[in-house]
Amino acid sequence: MTAEAYDVGVVGGGQLARMLAQAAIALDIRLGVLAVGADESAAQVTPHVLLGSPDAPEALAALARRSRVVTFDHELVDAEQLAALEGRGVCLRPSAATAALAQDKERQRATFGAAGLPQPAHRPVRDRAELLAFADEHGWPIVAKARRGGYDGRGVWVLDGPAAARALADEAAAREVALLAEAWVPLEREVAVLVARRPGGAAVVYPPVETVQVEGICRAVLYPSPLPGPLAAEAERLARRVAEVAGASGNLAVELFVSGGRLLINEIAARPHNAGHWTIEGSRTSQFENHLRGVLDLPLGATDALAPAVAMVNVLGGPRTGDVRGRLAAALAVEGVRVHLYGKAARPGRKIGHVTALGADRDETRARATRAAALLAGDE
Amino acid sequence: MTAEAYDVGVVGGGQLARMLAQAAIALDIRLGVLAVGADESAAQVTPHVLLGSPDAPEALAALARRSRVVTFDHELVDAEQLAALEGRGVCLRPSAATAALAQDKERQRATFGAAGLPQPAHRPVRDRAELLAFADEHGWPIVAKARRGGYDGRGVWVLDGPAAARALADEAAAREVALLAEAWVPLEREVAVLVARRPGGAAVVYPPVETVQVEGICRAVLYPSPLPGPLAAEAERLARRVAEVAGASGNLAVELFVSGGRLLINEIAARPHNAGHWTIEGSRTSQFENHLRGVLDLPLGATDALAPAVAMVNVLGGPRTGDVRGRLAAALAVEGVRVHLYGKAARPGRKIGHVTALGADRDETRARATRAAALLAGDE
Repeated sequence: MTAEAYDVGVVGGGQLARMLAQAAIALDIRLGVLAVGADESAAQVTPHVLLGSPDAPEALAALARRSRVVTFDHELVDAEQLAALEGRGVCLRPSAATAALAQDKERQRATFGAAGLPQPAHRPVRDRAELLAFADEHGWPIVAKARRGGYDGRGVWVLDGPAAARALADEAAAREVALLAEAWVPLEREVAVLVARRPGGAAVVYPPVETVQVEGICRAVLYPSPLPGPLAAEAERLARRVAEVAGASGNLAVELFVSGGRLLINEIAARPHNAGHWTIEGSRTSQFENHLRGVLDLPLGATDALAPAVAMVNVLGGPRTGDVRGRLAAALAVEGVRVHLYGKAARPGRKIGHVTALGADRDETRARATRAAALLAGDE
Repeated sequence: MTAEAYDVGVVGGGQLARMLAQAAIALDIRLGVLAVGADESAAQVTPHVLLGSPDAPEALAALARRSRVVTFDHELVDAEQLAALEGRGVCLRPSAATAALAQDKERQRATFGAAGLPQPAHRPVRDRAELLAFADEHGWPIVAKARRGGYDGRGVWVLDGPAAARALADEAAAREVALLAEAWVPLEREVAVLVARRPGGAAVVYPPVETVQVEGICRAVLYPSPLPGPLAAEAERLARRVAEVAGASGNLAVELFVSGGRLLINEIAARPHNAGHWTIEGSRTSQFENHLRGVLDLPLGATDALAPAVAMVNVLGGPRTGDVRGRLAAALAVEGVRVHLYGKAARPGRKIGHVTALGADRDETRARATRAAALLAGDE
């Protein structure tokens, strides 16, 4: 028996792969998922599952052999492995270079800096002394970021003085985590812009959205962003340019700070993104369909919104979450909401679903989506 | 090993089951499909497939054992088998009685007539003589319908005179097909109204749409219908009443004739329906999600349209259809269209996909959807 052939192979079986699998059905695209276990979010919903770890070269190679195009659900695959696959002729979209950029905050800063794009002052730091010197220059607080990944579920720290800086520098050194120092900027708000791009460069841009973060976790995404028209247009131009510089194929999410009326690049993700979940119901083409169209080099879909206001609120696991599905009826009773559950166990703080509401008014749609999400999480 | 448990078991593995499976992912509803072959439209896209024929009592029983609720992709299951299952405590939604009604055009006429609902003059006819007597009374042409199913892919015949009537009556008798005679009504147009209903009676109604039929096959569905406001409201009231009389749970589609400015019931289907495919992108909640919500007795979703005009055009197999997927790029290049392919071989006249377009204007959206569908079918 020959192995199954996939049009698109996805590294990772989380909710992004699950929503890609859902979108693939409409276009009759055979999407295969490389998942660690058959109980992973995406593996539950598709017949095309390859079990294996994204860290294991043989599992990646097996996915690549079966797939016309390989894409990603997360940024956890070793960049050298990706480069090696590409060197053997595997079609990675995004490319190994784009994936390496999305994994590495320092490389992002260097690349976007060289392209003249706006971002906070920053410098890689090797030790206590360099971290303190950066603070001397830019003033407290400063922001420290793990160059790649992080630890204990965190990768960003706001440091308010020398004691905190010394403690972090020591801890990072002990864990062999390379740090990047950045000037702290006073935020008016955070926005995100999603770009979908074909390998040849054709791209479409979704309108900017406001992302509401609490303790580093995205809670809500609101369309329209409250950016004034010219700044919204500037955000779209900037995101398009970032996608070009990054050489994206498929989706690229650009997270931006708004500070002093200016836009600064925070970071990028080269895949479908939480900031784009609102597009499933709220836009003429969902980010998941456009990611598939992008990586398969098909014409991209229209990105305009289908209502004056769209709100997306994440459902996070909490102490009372337990049986989410048992609370589905209560959530669906909230007028006009659409619910997405990811089939994941409700560990505290974990994203286990989201709710989208469309309407005429930003606050009203947000209130409805928030209420339904709270009902699902067992907070009410 | 114990058998898999399904929240919803679907009898049949066609495109309706496929689109139900797609909708089930968002709500984390485990949907199982009873399909004749693993290559059927729905069986291609879900891991939960039970192979077996809907005609085989043991296959139906196996699906029922695994499923909390059993629903249907088509009307081909023997009504007595369904009644027997229900008698053994299986939760059928729609019920065996509703399914029996949807299968039987004569029973529909008798039931809706008894409820005082408007429909063409009609009479069951057993032979030539009764068919000719009906024509004498109502004038030529008359319409003859197979009470159940049909043959050679047809179930409706317009008879323009005694010769045609005699030939059909003889053919039907030879094939043991019971006939229903109906008065021919001059049609201004055909519209359809979809209702989604919970077992307890709560229901939502989609706005009426115009259905464009060519040689008995639905080609296009257009929102809004051109009905004047009061007649559109009357169509919604009538459909709601039909769903009530039919005791629907899940979706019920009501096809209506518009004749002399009046509405007449043509026929019903107790399942998701081609006339509702536009709702996937064009409505706040798709017919497929609302069917699942209805059969699982969950609160139903809002049914309003998301654009002033929505057009759905079917992709039919034709002599040049061949490799539909190879023409996907051309179709997706048409501005703003969304494509659905069913993974079916392109036999002439067979529905193999559909295209939806949203816009400001009925003619313009129809033109775009028609163009993309023609590109997919290889007609251009």
